[in-house]
Amino acid sequence: MNAEAGMRFEQRLSLITLGVSDLKRSTRFYREVLGWIPSPVGGDAVTFFPLNGMVLALFPRDALAADAGVGGLEPAASSSVALAYNVRERGEVDDALAQLREAGARVVKPAEDAPWGGRSGYFADPDGFLWEVAWNPGFPMREDGSIQVPE
Amino acid sequence: MNAEAGMRFEQRLSLITLGVSDLKRSTRFYREVLGWIPSPVGGDAVTFFPLNGMVLALFPRDALAADAGVGGLEPAASSSVALAYNVRERGEVDDALAQLREAGARVVKPAEDAPWGGRSGYFADPDGFLWEVAWNPGFPMREDGSIQVPE
Repeated sequence: MNAEAGMRFEQRLSLITLGVSDLKRSTRFYREVLGWIPSPVGGDAVTFFPLNGMVLALFPRDALAADAGVGGLEPAASSSVALAYNVRERGEVDDALAQLREAGARVVKPAEDAPWGGRSGYFADPDGFLWEVAWNPGFPMREDGSIQVPE
Repeated sequence: MNAEAGMRFEQRLSLITLGVSDLKRSTRFYREVLGWIPSPVGGDAVTFFPLNGMVLALFPRDALAADAGVGGLEPAASSSVALAYNVRERGEVDDALAQLREAGARVVKPAEDAPWGGRSGYFADPDGFLWEVAWNPGFPMREDGSIQVPE
């Protein structure tokens, strides 16, 4: 990188941090409802879930506000962000949401056919962070689960 | 996948959608300040930036609320989420934030050494969505920019 010439920002995301109100509760949700395994790094202060080349971090909301040097952050229920977990087959949307509901997740919107030609529904994590479960034939998925977007 | 046996949620994220108040303004910010190139898919309704095997979507906040079937979503300035762009070298944090500031981004927190042994700072997009620029020696980066988290 060369600051004089200007650096190029690669098109990638390294980490997404959700500011949560109860770290233990949220960690339990992602472990038990989604079945995800956290990294041993982080300990009691922060939970890191290694995803596809990037990381989902759960961090107490106050600690996130302090880290970013901002005054305060509102609870997630009001936040305008949605994460999406895409699936390979249409029917998996319904199956996933049924399984999530049974495991204790709050389904915000049941599976429906979408105007863009796929099928999707939404659930919420304990803080109200929105997750979409989607089958999108316009965004094919590679064997490893990564998404191919027309460029 | 077998619904009876239970599906396994792979540890991956397909898409993150930011609910924005002005799609054109936000698209311009990511194009011009970060230099990112959107996918031609989406048109005037939504902007998709192909990232590392996943997608950053910008979507009008009201449309996101309607899509998720929730009553309304608050502006992002109050949302407790932070995205992170990690860099390969310590000095890139300062260079990146200087360049972002010059390009018109609001730097929320200048580069500082972090208690976890790295260096980081924050900027905000036009809606106030927080982005951290971080050098984290504990999360080594592969050649392709993906993050390796100790498992």
